[in-house]
Amino acid sequence: MAKTNPGRFFEDYAVGQVIDHAVPRTVSGGERAMYHALYPARHALYSSDEFARASGLPASPVDDLITFHTVFGKTVPDVSLNAVANLGYAEGKFLKPVYPGDTLRSTSEVIGLKQNSNGKSGVVYVRTRGLNQRDEVVLDYVRWVMVRKNNLDAPAPETVIPELSKVLSVDDLVIPEGLDFTNYDFTLAGEPHRFGDYEVGELIDHVDGVTIEEAEHMMATRLWQNTAKVHFDATFRPDGQRLIYGGHVISMARALSFNGLANAQMIVGLNGGAHANPCFSGLTVRAWSEVLDKAETSAPGVGAVRLRLVATKHGAEVGQLKGEDGKYLPEVLLDLDYWALMPM
Amino acid sequence: MAKTNPGRFFEDYAVGQVIDHAVPRTVSGGERAMYHALYPARHALYSSDEFARASGLPASPVDDLITFHTVFGKTVPDVSLNAVANLGYAEGKFLKPVYPGDTLRSTSEVIGLKQNSNGKSGVVYVRTRGLNQRDEVVLDYVRWVMVRKNNLDAPAPETVIPELSKVLSVDDLVIPEGLDFTNYDFTLAGEPHRFGDYEVGELIDHVDGVTIEEAEHMMATRLWQNTAKVHFDATFRPDGQRLIYGGHVISMARALSFNGLANAQMIVGLNGGAHANPCFSGLTVRAWSEVLDKAETSAPGVGAVRLRLVATKHGAEVGQLKGEDGKYLPEVLLDLDYWALMPM
Amino acid sequence: MAKTNPGRFFEDYAVGQVIDHAVPRTVSGGERAMYHALYPARHALYSSDEFARASGLPASPVDDLITFHTVFGKTVPDVSLNAVANLGYAEGKFLKPVYPGDTLRSTSEVIGLKQNSNGKSGVVYVRTRGLNQRDEVVLDYVRWVMVRKNNLDAPAPETVIPELSKVLSVDDLVIPEGLDFTNYDFTLAGEPHRFGDYEVGELIDHVDGVTIEEAEHMMATRLWQNTAKVHFDATFRPDGQRLIYGGHVISMARALSFNGLANAQMIVGLNGGAHANPCFSGLTVRAWSEVLDKAETSAPGVGAVRLRLVATKHGAEVGQLKGEDGKYLPEVLLDLDYWALMPM
Repeated sequence: MAKTNPGRFFEDYAVGQVIDHAVPRTVSGGERAMYHALYPARHALYSSDEFARASGLPASPVDDLITFHTVFGKTVPDVSLNAVANLGYAEGKFLKPVYPGDTLRSTSEVIGLKQNSNGKSGVVYVRTRGLNQRDEVVLDYVRWVMVRKNNLDAPAPETVIPELSKVLSVDDLVIPEGLDFTNYDFTLAGEPHRFGDYEVGELIDHVDGVTIEEAEHMMATRLWQNTAKVHFDATFRPDGQRLIYGGHVISMARALSFNGLANAQMIVGLNGGAHANPCFSGLTVRAWSEVLDKAETSAPGVGAVRLRLVATKHGAEVGQLKGEDGKYLPEVLLDLDYWALMPM
Repeated sequence: MAKTNPGRFFEDYAVGQVIDHAVPRTVSGGERAMYHALYPARHALYSSDEFARASGLPASPVDDLITFHTVFGKTVPDVSLNAVANLGYAEGKFLKPVYPGDTLRSTSEVIGLKQNSNGKSGVVYVRTRGLNQRDEVVLDYVRWVMVRKNNLDAPAPETVIPELSKVLSVDDLVIPEGLDFTNYDFTLAGEPHRFGDYEVGELIDHVDGVTIEEAEHMMATRLWQNTAKVHFDATFRPDGQRLIYGGHVISMARALSFNGLANAQMIVGLNGGAHANPCFSGLTVRAWSEVLDKAETSAPGVGAVRLRLVATKHGAEVGQLKGEDGKYLPEVLLDLDYWALMPM
Repeated sequence: MAKTNPGRFFEDYAVGQVIDHAVPRTVSGGERAMYHALYPARHALYSSDEFARASGLPASPVDDLITFHTVFGKTVPDVSLNAVANLGYAEGKFLKPVYPGDTLRSTSEVIGLKQNSNGKSGVVYVRTRGLNQRDEVVLDYVRWVMVRKNNLDAPAPETVIPELSKVLSVDDLVIPEGLDFTNYDFTLAGEPHRFGDYEVGELIDHVDGVTIEEAEHMMATRLWQNTAKVHFDATFRPDGQRLIYGGHVISMARALSFNGLANAQMIVGLNGGAHANPCFSGLTVRAWSEVLDKAETSAPGVGAVRLRLVATKHGAEVGQLKGEDGKYLPEVLLDLDYWALMPM
């Protein structure tokens, strides 16, 4: 009896199937310190207990993307071990901040299936929930991946494509209990720009660049217990390159976006995202953002800003995303659409 | 007066000598996070406080190998700074789990000496104990190293070779107080295979590979305050390579063994081990295991499995350990023999 | 409206100006573990809660250089983003130990200005204070940097050069409350050499070397939220090299100095420092120290030792600092002058 996990293939999924993912994880100040060592993360709410308390929270939560990566990482052995491509995200809601001491686990439900016309692979849609030790959902999101078939003779399942919101409305966003930006300290936060200073359509060049190292992306990816071979094993791809976990690029770009968006403190919604081109060690990653929308919220002093966050490599221009053919330019690594909370 | 530590030479050891090693260390969630960033470690008992509590422990201990490396690291300045080779381990017993907040120190007793026939070096046997802040022994093991003589005219000591068990019997193993696997959650642990599913003689290919980076093995080795120059200083060896701390290979192989041995949760005994060939940056490490023995224990739902864990590099085959000449094959990096606890 | 931080230029500073720096930070056991992974740090007081308690402190503080880097890092976006060179340090006083759970912020006052004769840049002197969550000053130091002018037509400010002590006297040093070395355990600390064993003028070769990796210095620099582009972006300098944060060299040299100065436990004063030559990845860093002065203190069993700590690269000789032209030798990376506390 083979005891190692071969991963699931396309024919192993059925709509309605629920998969409880393995290896719950307790996070601590250690994960936070590692995150700050791996990314130039400087949002004050995630750096200082005092700043978080002044904003109405009990302490500084771990970065929202630590929550995302931890929840996501647990799904990899069950969802994307045999994935050909990570196709998209939708309806991501951050429902509860996660604090040092919390223990996270993940569960997914298959909500859609579509076999490709070549009969060799198909698209699997899952809704994943991250839960803490009190069984509270802290994160809920949909992603879809292309997965290989193992048995090419397996019959195609009935095609089910879930209806997914292209964008979360501001009413869908959950503001952390107690959050209050009325006494927000812009000096400590690092920039004076508030909700009213951003205009829909505005482009922000985040200026700074970070050159990527193998040791760093592997440490990051392991920290989230993401086991996909392609990130760690230089003998896996014919070209000898280790493909960098897309989440590493997300975190790098989000951290770089501090410069210009220091007050876009909390991520509360993930409308969508595409890993436009693969990222490899040695590239220098930069980022730019576009303000897509703005909305007030019910929390005191708290506005919501919808942002497009784009990570790029050498040769990119701010604001340039796709070519005339409608495809992403080769210099674009990531196109992420999210809602963040910002002081009014 | 020279103030730096030249390390001890073979003629500096005497049987019965007790060496209290320096630099006690308090471990925290930081060490755990670093461990998870450095190795693809996923055993649930060491990842989740909740899982550990459900298994009868007060919280999630730090990985047993964190304990091993921390205790071992302290011995390096006194035992192996002038070592030519790390020859073996025996009678390793993990006696108490270590938790964040515990402070570890190490002490060793010289239990054997044998000068080599060339008169230039000799073998030193030490029994090392790791103690916590309550002076409880948390780990006890024997290792022997070949150490250079500094004064070749120093007389050879009387040869004393300690009698060491080749294998710990199951009765020698200490089960952590309170451990109870009767309500073990195999889904959260990541694999369904229990004690009864493993057969003596069974081989398990752990499939995954990790390519080793300089930054990672140096960070790991420093974290355990292991100071051996050969791991850090590229000018130390004529070939300009930094030799990787053998313990880095142990931890990498153990973490890789999750895939197939996810339920071999706790290491309680170290029967023996050999660093068969040196490991260098750039190699891709893989692992396979062989089930050597099985035994029931007195703890509820807890079985003990004796495993051979083999780390390899490119060109190795699962199950192939030594050549016709009885020597390790050049592709074998590590041959470790240990007892782990597994749910019945 | 451009929202990214272009940094301040020389003409943006005025004597008396106070700058409250952004992004306060709560430190934890995670920062400590990272520090020990990045540097071969082994001073027992910073490694063990038990050792610190036996020395009269409530627990093990974070390394004094963690405090320094954290406070320093916050000043970078306001002080040295457009710096051409980091010229010097003076009057650095470590006033309170920092413990896991403390939150640090920084504030600086401009205390001097001198435009260079070329009219293109000038020297800015700032006194920086690091404060904890109780508004207690934990660190106070002066540094001066050469900063570019952006508007070359801006008038030169009145030249003000602050009067700075070349060396702190022992009476300027603040000994942590409760510190008591009368029951100091030299075995646990790692070396037998006490205050009385060191002579003014004595040179100590710290022997060990560490080869520097890109991933490590970037992780270190990010951990302190230091954002200077030149450390992270391989496309920033024409030669494609990433300049290593000078503080990384300070910490590396200080950690290496354990071997010979294991009992120089706490840094309490920073008299001065120069980054003599730039450091790049691939270099092997070594260190030597010179005892510059000694003094008794009012704390029980505690002496103060003034040390010159020199970091070097290949080709350096212990004790050789400057050439006949009075300039630093090309092999010298760092020349640091500090006071440390040592058991009598």
